[in-house]
Amino acid sequence: MKIAFLGVGHMGLPMALDLLRAGHELRIFNRTPQRATALQQAGAFLASSPAEAVEGVEVAVTMLANDQAVRETIMEPGSSGLAAIDVLPRNAIHMCTSTISVALSRKLTREHALRGQGYVASPVLGRPEAAAQAHLWVMAAGRRDHIERCRPVMTAFSRGISVVGTEPWQANLTKLAANFMTASMLEAFGEAFALVRKSDMDPHAFLEIVNALFASPMYSTYGRIVADQKFEPAAFRLTLGLKDIHLVLEAARDAAVPMPLAGLLRDHFLNAVAHGREGADWSAVAEVPAWNAGIEAAVPAR
Amino acid sequence: MKIAFLGVGHMGLPMALDLLRAGHELRIFNRTPQRATALQQAGAFLASSPAEAVEGVEVAVTMLANDQAVRETIMEPGSSGLAAIDVLPRNAIHMCTSTISVALSRKLTREHALRGQGYVASPVLGRPEAAAQAHLWVMAAGRRDHIERCRPVMTAFSRGISVVGTEPWQANLTKLAANFMTASMLEAFGEAFALVRKSDMDPHAFLEIVNALFASPMYSTYGRIVADQKFEPAAFRLTLGLKDIHLVLEAARDAAVPMPLAGLLRDHFLNAVAHGREGADWSAVAEVPAWNAGIEAAVPAR
Amino acid sequence: MKIAFLGVGHMGLPMALDLLRAGHELRIFNRTPQRATALQQAGAFLASSPAEAVEGVEVAVTMLANDQAVRETIMEPGSSGLAAIDVLPRNAIHMCTSTISVALSRKLTREHALRGQGYVASPVLGRPEAAAQAHLWVMAAGRRDHIERCRPVMTAFSRGISVVGTEPWQANLTKLAANFMTASMLEAFGEAFALVRKSDMDPHAFLEIVNALFASPMYSTYGRIVADQKFEPAAFRLTLGLKDIHLVLEAARDAAVPMPLAGLLRDHFLNAVAHGREGADWSAVAEVPAWNAGIEAAVPAR
Amino acid sequence: MKIAFLGVGHMGLPMALDLLRAGHELRIFNRTPQRATALQQAGAFLASSPAEAVEGVEVAVTMLANDQAVRETIMEPGSSGLAAIDVLPRNAIHMCTSTISVALSRKLTREHALRGQGYVASPVLGRPEAAAQAHLWVMAAGRRDHIERCRPVMTAFSRGISVVGTEPWQANLTKLAANFMTASMLEAFGEAFALVRKSDMDPHAFLEIVNALFASPMYSTYGRIVADQKFEPAAFRLTLGLKDIHLVLEAARDAAVPMPLAGLLRDHFLNAVAHGREGADWSAVAEVPAWNAGIEAAVPAR
Repeated sequence: MKIAFLGVGHMGLPMALDLLRAGHELRIFNRTPQRATALQQAGAFLASSPAEAVEGVEVAVTMLANDQAVRETIMEPGSSGLAAIDVLPRNAIHMCTSTISVALSRKLTREHALRGQGYVASPVLGRPEAAAQAHLWVMAAGRRDHIERCRPVMTAFSRGISVVGTEPWQANLTKLAANFMTASMLEAFGEAFALVRKSDMDPHAFLEIVNALFASPMYSTYGRIVADQKFEPAAFRLTLGLKDIHLVLEAARDAAVPMPLAGLLRDHFLNAVAHGREGADWSAVAEVPAWNAGIEAAVPAR
Repeated sequence: MKIAFLGVGHMGLPMALDLLRAGHELRIFNRTPQRATALQQAGAFLASSPAEAVEGVEVAVTMLANDQAVRETIMEPGSSGLAAIDVLPRNAIHMCTSTISVALSRKLTREHALRGQGYVASPVLGRPEAAAQAHLWVMAAGRRDHIERCRPVMTAFSRGISVVGTEPWQANLTKLAANFMTASMLEAFGEAFALVRKSDMDPHAFLEIVNALFASPMYSTYGRIVADQKFEPAAFRLTLGLKDIHLVLEAARDAAVPMPLAGLLRDHFLNAVAHGREGADWSAVAEVPAWNAGIEAAVPAR
Repeated sequence: MKIAFLGVGHMGLPMALDLLRAGHELRIFNRTPQRATALQQAGAFLASSPAEAVEGVEVAVTMLANDQAVRETIMEPGSSGLAAIDVLPRNAIHMCTSTISVALSRKLTREHALRGQGYVASPVLGRPEAAAQAHLWVMAAGRRDHIERCRPVMTAFSRGISVVGTEPWQANLTKLAANFMTASMLEAFGEAFALVRKSDMDPHAFLEIVNALFASPMYSTYGRIVADQKFEPAAFRLTLGLKDIHLVLEAARDAAVPMPLAGLLRDHFLNAVAHGREGADWSAVAEVPAWNAGIEAAVPAR
Repeated sequence: MKIAFLGVGHMGLPMALDLLRAGHELRIFNRTPQRATALQQAGAFLASSPAEAVEGVEVAVTMLANDQAVRETIMEPGSSGLAAIDVLPRNAIHMCTSTISVALSRKLTREHALRGQGYVASPVLGRPEAAAQAHLWVMAAGRRDHIERCRPVMTAFSRGISVVGTEPWQANLTKLAANFMTASMLEAFGEAFALVRKSDMDPHAFLEIVNALFASPMYSTYGRIVADQKFEPAAFRLTLGLKDIHLVLEAARDAAVPMPLAGLLRDHFLNAVAHGREGADWSAVAEVPAWNAGIEAAVPAR
């Protein structure tokens, strides 16, 4: 297949390499073109604008940081004076793997439909290493025929695909809810470790029990980070975690669903930001309960 | 070894059978003696009082519902006019596997020490089925030599033993913190499912993603219960869950550790009790966010 | 002075009458012109568009429902093809008394400055009856000279003016924080009354104590509404209260200030919306704790 | 009337003086007898034990710090070997003005009834200065005839009496709920001031608005303390405030009433304790939101 890939950052790069390895023809675009060298060497064509990248493709994959980046890359005219959405061929599909808002996903569905194009939301679970091993998990939503046409693309970088609905925004909501589940685990760890540490007990002994109980790679990985208090370098920046919680709360507001634990997470992420942890891994949110228990001084914001 | 086993309910019965199978000599007591028949047939001696049960033993195991049951069984004079604690031999060890308060554990440590006896707290992870297969996980705390003398007992019903401290109460705090981690997962499920269901999405599709993410038997087991809304019969009664959260909050108060997520759980357990869910499984706490979102009417309390 | 008054609803109408009574020349605009009849009879000129209303005035007062209404009325071209902001004379001042977001207030400051106009934010405290008696309280922010030029306008409908800052948005933040204080009182009433009522005690007896304690008209007025459970007709719609709490949370996010009580209010307002209370007075948020205590069944949303 | 007064601390001393001024015969007891000098000079008889103090009286008033002090003073044998409750005459009334738990109040009701004595709970609103001017407000509950017999005593130190129920514990619940209302105001102030201060605005300007809005001495008094950050010396110690919130939560648990705002207060009081504010005025709880916003460094606990 002839595929465009927009956004080859930490996640996008290994995903694009997976597609090349699977034998697809790739047209790529990235705001900082230097990141694209490895892909060019592997045979990808480097476009100078999003619009150029999507010329004549069957599927345009986006893997971008947030709503604003997706809006700019797809809907705004770039250096060429043309917006990618107006160049993407009729019948082609925009397959959006970014974690974006339900509202933007609804808007993209409408805008692509107006142009006779398809739109599939397919955010992924997994970190860059999983992407490098074609080991992501895809949650896809959209029209069945659109999803089927994207399936070879998804298969190239994943170990599993769950179809979660026929409306693209449903995949975005699912991804946000999954991130909320992970963040909730971080808060639970934060409070439990605060109690354990202030009782002069060894957090690693407690973690051993948690691992016996949950037997989950997520718990053992994040539990060790929190027990060791090693929040740098960030695999997923705290400000991105805060963004996702805000998107959860926005979706919850629109559906009139009270989510007190999401509200608590919001407060603890803001507390972490107020104490200079913007650049730490989002698991640093688990430090806030320790500060609140007076275990160690929080660094003042000013 | 000559062992007393006090409390042969849902958990205690299979644990006692494990001990018989391992070749130990068993003296048992239960408030409702009918439950002891299977054990008698397997060779256990049925005592008529806690005091009689602990006569001449090396280790007295208790598996009782709560603080009050432990206090009554061990410290109050029964039909014989004697309290078990005053009959238990010098140098014998009380090995307490119940989920009790930090305060009572401290008190038992003192009281046994005064009588030249040992005290080991060793609550367990796992349900009755795990006990039947000698597959529990033990978190033990107490004096090293006391723990070593109890190790053959623990080994008989467990697949693993974590020593979490030298003060018995540390094992109780660990167990409470572990239960708090599980209850936190239930709250996260409750809020995420409320959002998913009110957005007209299939909770089982969401659960598939959660399982891909956490790969944890705890998440798949409880996730299915919540997705199916099958909260009866109770494997662990909601009122016991509420009791444990109160013990967590009590320990947190004594250590001056704010635990907002534990407070949120307290409120949602109380909400469930106020709507007649006392006898449901504790995972029914995950229904509260659905009620709050107006998804279905909660039954009024009066 | 020659004054434009845009928005003569529940609050705007009595305020505009105050201005006429004080002898000012008034040009008014309202989306539903019928509401303007009383003002016309009292001597006001009824304009057919916001742009026409602000022609040649010294001060243009707006009293509109929310951000969207202010944006449309001031910045978008109406039937005349002209936006009010492009017709308002150089050196004239837009005096905005609506409860709007900090973000929009900042934007209006910039836009008016670009056109050589002044901008003063001056939200008010008080209900329509207070407006009718020129008994509002004004919190004003903006350049000192701008505020001074608006003072005769403010004086016409108020019993007091507090200058809270030199940046207009500071008055909006102040108003939002004041509304948050009131909503917090409602939540406190809700929880206290739930406890009192479920303990079979008389809420009015409790209210007598609260009045002895606080001696505040706000507590006695709202306390009686909650004790009587008389939430209709609405003096201030619940959805407007929810909007204000969202604006508070938005400002708090931008300043990285965790506000857990504001988050709790958000959840309880959403709970009330999910149970069909959109059109009730915002004090109906105090019913949510009663529902949570099972005192009476909440009506399901679907 | 012949009256015993047990506990002449900050509150008890001026109340006892009020009773002397009203012409009553007074027998007093205090754990630190030095505090009683002024009362002796004014004509009171200083007893050497609670039991001696209540000999032959019609009413025994207690004004003590907490449950434990009431239990010790009334129910435990003192230096004389006799408990006051066993010396208090049949038909005499114990009028308890302390803020104690619902549970203890129920117990005292039973214990006094067994001895043919009456029991009236009559906690008071107001600070020591109000007591000195006979300006307290009494909330009384108990049997109507018992309350009537205590009325002359209550009148001597109060400006108003509200009868809130026929069961003594109802007055205790009322007092706890009233303290909860005040603490909720402190949390609201804390969050609003944090937002205002972090936005570089003057907290005193904000307070002016709050005063215009609520017109309540409670708001103006506490608002100034929080705006000035003058939390020492304590008029009411933070640990006493925490104790009261725990009693509220205990009563709420027994009635199955979720109280999330009370839970939030608990966490913020614990946070303040964890940062060394035990001895500050309870209004220092309003500093916690400022710490959480990073406005100033919290002092570490260790």
